[in-house]
Amino acid sequence: MIVIGELINGMYKDVGKAIANKESDVIQHLAADQVMAGASVLDVNTGPYSQNPKDDMKWLIETIQGVVQVPLALDSTKADVIEEGLKLVAKRAIINSTNADEAKMAVIFGLAKKYNTQVIGLAMDKSGVPNSKEKRLELAAAIVAKAMEFGINAEDLFLDPIVLPLNVAQAQGSEVLESIREFRLLCDPAPNTTIGLSNVSQGTKFRPLVNRTFLTMAVANGLTSAILDPLDKELMDAMITAELVLNKAIYCDSFLEAYRKR
Amino acid sequence: MIVIGELINGMYKDVGKAIANKESDVIQHLAADQVMAGASVLDVNTGPYSQNPKDDMKWLIETIQGVVQVPLALDSTKADVIEEGLKLVAKRAIINSTNADEAKMAVIFGLAKKYNTQVIGLAMDKSGVPNSKEKRLELAAAIVAKAMEFGINAEDLFLDPIVLPLNVAQAQGSEVLESIREFRLLCDPAPNTTIGLSNVSQGTKFRPLVNRTFLTMAVANGLTSAILDPLDKELMDAMITAELVLNKAIYCDSFLEAYRKR
Repeated sequence: MIVIGELINGMYKDVGKAIANKESDVIQHLAADQVMAGASVLDVNTGPYSQNPKDDMKWLIETIQGVVQVPLALDSTKADVIEEGLKLVAKRAIINSTNADEAKMAVIFGLAKKYNTQVIGLAMDKSGVPNSKEKRLELAAAIVAKAMEFGINAEDLFLDPIVLPLNVAQAQGSEVLESIREFRLLCDPAPNTTIGLSNVSQGTKFRPLVNRTFLTMAVANGLTSAILDPLDKELMDAMITAELVLNKAIYCDSFLEAYRKR
Repeated sequence: MIVIGELINGMYKDVGKAIANKESDVIQHLAADQVMAGASVLDVNTGPYSQNPKDDMKWLIETIQGVVQVPLALDSTKADVIEEGLKLVAKRAIINSTNADEAKMAVIFGLAKKYNTQVIGLAMDKSGVPNSKEKRLELAAAIVAKAMEFGINAEDLFLDPIVLPLNVAQAQGSEVLESIREFRLLCDPAPNTTIGLSNVSQGTKFRPLVNRTFLTMAVANGLTSAILDPLDKELMDAMITAELVLNKAIYCDSFLEAYRKR
């Protein structure tokens, strides 16, 4: 499982403030803590209030790379902000994200090819988030096909079926879970799959319980990556155990500790 | 989800002692507590040390039915012990269990027809527990076919793929999970599926974590029943949440409480 730590995002109040005031210790602690807790990639998002997202992206990357050496997922709707970041990354990056729109894919896959990155592909287009697994599969297939035109391998894609909050789109839960299973069958070698996990529990009363239950179910359906809060220990325990059930790590009595020591 | 409470089993020390000494309050508390916690069926097993399993089975059934009105799963390897119980049950019972052996099926399905019961069918035969999902499916199909010969509907079967301990048969975890999915496709209307959950964590260090993770993954694969400890609150919370994700209950902020009030 590729765990993408979600916490370095300017939409969180403390992080937004740290970016505005260039408080590098706040960012570096978040980076180190997430990696210690099991994140293998860190998401980097300047947030909605950034006055100068290009400069903020550059500062975040340099600040993070001062303490940890992991791939970064550059998270922005603006291609020029992502490109500024791509010039600075020390490890092979992930672009977060493209959707299935032709124009968007052309720009993002162009950048991915130029800078040799991986790409998160959202199964949505201009008309929004699909409400069926069939439409999700159609959009995911369009993303894979376009990536291939650009010479990008399916294994370098992270297809995201778009998780919706359980309390407003309950029927979408099983559509998303089945989509994860179906996306893996699009080609061989299979594309990666990912989800923005915390969205599922948005507005619900027992957020950690909903998050870890959904993640466990997604792992059962073959999920290979998730964007989540790695500091939620019970969430990580559930994920580690679900992967153990699928034989992705060898059982030992101290399997939780063993995973974290990797 | 049909939760079959596993606690009234003479293999547990306190229960074995209560059966031997005819301590009805111990049994009645276990019965009432399990039903309060969400069990819709209670398993009844006199245990390996019973001197007179027929009498013990009768005493257990009468004792349980003195406090709760739920279906019972009569759990014995001896058909005559089960039949003694079937004469006494107040609600439609489940026979726990047959396997795929011809002779065993003939006896158990004969009883099931005579007493109008449901049946748990274990996907194993004289050669033991299969080590592949293909073999499990073959045995499950044989059970469904034999049940149909006896005029028993697939919906009245609970097919059990046989869960093995993660620490000794780790590769079987995903075989069992996929079997749950495949058993449901054997016919339409689909047979029920069940698992003896606690077996998965036998001998492991974090038993409750392993149990609730495996159950959540099994629900994601379409499991419709499980034999488990309903007094494990975190386990039940995980199950309730997993079913909510699959839209089997309507979301409300107090969804955990709502389930338990049913």
